[in-house]
Amino acid sequence: MPHLLRHCRQIVSPTIREFSAAARSHHVRVVRDGALLMSDSGQVVWWGTEQELLAHGPGGWEDAAQTDASAWVILPGFVDCHTHVVHAGDRMDEWELKLRGASYEELHARGMGILSTVRKTREAGDAELEIQSRARLRAMLARGVTTVEIKSGYGLSHEQEIRLLEIIARLRESGPQGVVATFLGAHAVPPEAASAAEWVDEIIRRTLPEIARRKLASACDIYCEQGAFDPGLSEKLLIAASRHGLRLRVHAEQLSRTGAAEMASAIGADTADHLEYAGGGDITSLSRAGTTAVILPGAALCIGARRKDPDPPVRELIDSGAPVAVATDNNPGTSPTTHLPLMASLALHRYGMTPEEALWSITLHAARALGLEDRGTFHQEGGVPPRADVTAMECDDWRRFLYEPGSAPVAKVWIGGREVFSRGD
Amino acid sequence: MPHLLRHCRQIVSPTIREFSAAARSHHVRVVRDGALLMSDSGQVVWWGTEQELLAHGPGGWEDAAQTDASAWVILPGFVDCHTHVVHAGDRMDEWELKLRGASYEELHARGMGILSTVRKTREAGDAELEIQSRARLRAMLARGVTTVEIKSGYGLSHEQEIRLLEIIARLRESGPQGVVATFLGAHAVPPEAASAAEWVDEIIRRTLPEIARRKLASACDIYCEQGAFDPGLSEKLLIAASRHGLRLRVHAEQLSRTGAAEMASAIGADTADHLEYAGGGDITSLSRAGTTAVILPGAALCIGARRKDPDPPVRELIDSGAPVAVATDNNPGTSPTTHLPLMASLALHRYGMTPEEALWSITLHAARALGLEDRGTFHQEGGVPPRADVTAMECDDWRRFLYEPGSAPVAKVWIGGREVFSRGD
Repeated sequence: MPHLLRHCRQIVSPTIREFSAAARSHHVRVVRDGALLMSDSGQVVWWGTEQELLAHGPGGWEDAAQTDASAWVILPGFVDCHTHVVHAGDRMDEWELKLRGASYEELHARGMGILSTVRKTREAGDAELEIQSRARLRAMLARGVTTVEIKSGYGLSHEQEIRLLEIIARLRESGPQGVVATFLGAHAVPPEAASAAEWVDEIIRRTLPEIARRKLASACDIYCEQGAFDPGLSEKLLIAASRHGLRLRVHAEQLSRTGAAEMASAIGADTADHLEYAGGGDITSLSRAGTTAVILPGAALCIGARRKDPDPPVRELIDSGAPVAVATDNNPGTSPTTHLPLMASLALHRYGMTPEEALWSITLHAARALGLEDRGTFHQEGGVPPRADVTAMECDDWRRFLYEPGSAPVAKVWIGGREVFSRGD
Repeated sequence: MPHLLRHCRQIVSPTIREFSAAARSHHVRVVRDGALLMSDSGQVVWWGTEQELLAHGPGGWEDAAQTDASAWVILPGFVDCHTHVVHAGDRMDEWELKLRGASYEELHARGMGILSTVRKTREAGDAELEIQSRARLRAMLARGVTTVEIKSGYGLSHEQEIRLLEIIARLRESGPQGVVATFLGAHAVPPEAASAAEWVDEIIRRTLPEIARRKLASACDIYCEQGAFDPGLSEKLLIAASRHGLRLRVHAEQLSRTGAAEMASAIGADTADHLEYAGGGDITSLSRAGTTAVILPGAALCIGARRKDPDPPVRELIDSGAPVAVATDNNPGTSPTTHLPLMASLALHRYGMTPEEALWSITLHAARALGLEDRGTFHQEGGVPPRADVTAMECDDWRRFLYEPGSAPVAKVWIGGREVFSRGD
């Protein structure tokens, strides 16, 4: 049955427009005392003011189920476009040792670091991994997040990486959130591999073809950094992934400037993520290529502050016309948070974004970075009406979750028109 | 009836010890599979392991009401020791203009800034102010905060400041949280005053005596900053307040180095708050004086990042032996947050604290800064058992709210042994 939200305190949506370097503005349409109609098939088919509804609403709206939304601000469901949700356990003890100033060598001697999560993830059964991942997805849902990108990357063998992508596929099937799979086999050099190059070759020879054949991922990502994969190897892997029809992403310039952003721009990657050390020509390169800069304030907070890393050049990226998205980077080693609205508030305050830019960064820009054309806005693009992924916040003004860091007064969430979260559930 | 929490996943408490420059360590006792007994009169009278309970528990524990706490980590209720909760409205439009780079002159021309909140607060009726303040206190309760310090300071006339302190007294009476009142008549120079000095003189002549006579506040605070009150005037006011038996606090070194921290140390103030620009001899002065440094990461995030202010020297303060507390600074102009656990996580990550130091900063150090001896720990100090202000978090490890910025999985809160919050309420 169609469902009509009536008397919404505000309905808020990024306005549709092809985002390009030429169109740097981030418009947001705000309708007060609004109405929004979700169709039987789970799409937003009409929205406007109550006055417009009564004067010339869509045919048959009187027969829809109706909900009074006068206490709510209605927003497009948020999109978390960079996470590592599928992993076993946490690294709280390692985190505490780092806070106490432990050296990398000391942590390594204790068997800590990313390979400890790889070990725990390999050992965990499928059911255990799914339970832990679902708990994280539920925490995200309670913050209004309706689509989540999830990377593999804690398997680091052909079989284990395929297993993690199968788990991600099951998380998508069981819902309720939209789940987008990214293959990150090149997250670190596996302990069993003779070299980074050998592992990349195995991925290209064996893993990418299977992923493509079975449609287990829509994108391929790589951790391009000193001690992991250099820009040359990264480019080799991504070019191969591109031949299989995968979208391309790069962990770029997080801990040092490696040339990853330049490489990402040159091959027309969809996203370059982190970018703390991006500088020089990187900003115009990314902007010209239309590559989305994905900013991860949780990782910057949890490790960047201690390392005294620079802030990512967010203002410069936006001013140059690059689309900027913000994500949680949910992972046990450097960003355990599930709180995307808080990440947007941190990015806004620390890096200087407007409320509109911050909203775009977790809705429309994030959705487009994943290649999703049917969400992130209530505006219709081309022929396809937007999916009814809708977050209702109980507050007076849509900017409140940005103004008050840590607040996320989510009252209800619908995905594809179906109610999937209600506060107090 | 006494109430016994059984099989607590963890019971966690700062260990009691007189904190001094000589004792720089921050111990936290963690008991697994624990039991905690709240007496009929609302105090924590016993806690230990289940094994200890069964072997030599307190007399009569078998007759207490019992709750299974196996899903919960049990912590002392949090103490927010620096807030401006009593105010009318928000300043979201001003905040947005500032994010867009508006100048001070432009904001002033639009009637924005602190005096706009003074105007709205003066115009608001008592009932309206109480409703708005209670909503903020409720949000704090849902994050496990059981005691809140509230400052006056948006009245800026004798009558209005007294009125705000009366409202704070009513918030204390209506509960459920403990409320500590601080007089901040010298928050800004009133628009009606000829000068800062004239206003301080009026406060000393008229307002302080009435506050002392009617016991409307336990402390006096002042905003010592360029354009507000200089250290000389601040000292004059605080010395007068001290003669009335009030505790002394100073907003110090937030936007520039004025000498406020030095002055605060010299007069033996209880707290010096903000401290972004503290340096040189300030750290040893505060530490020698035993003055608590109150760190406000919300204000540093919301305005300090844009201004490129330095970080407060938290690591140096702790290492020199100064007690360091963390608070929200809840106020509409520079820190609208109500999320104290998040503030502790931000302070930990950005300024380099250990989990134990961060826990002390929002429990025992915060309580002692307010002169409260009966909370902030479950350990008994002197003859007085601690008040049963108890926060139950549904998680596996007490450090989780620090490890995951923005998480605060509060399931239940008791104040004085009475259940005052349950998730889903």
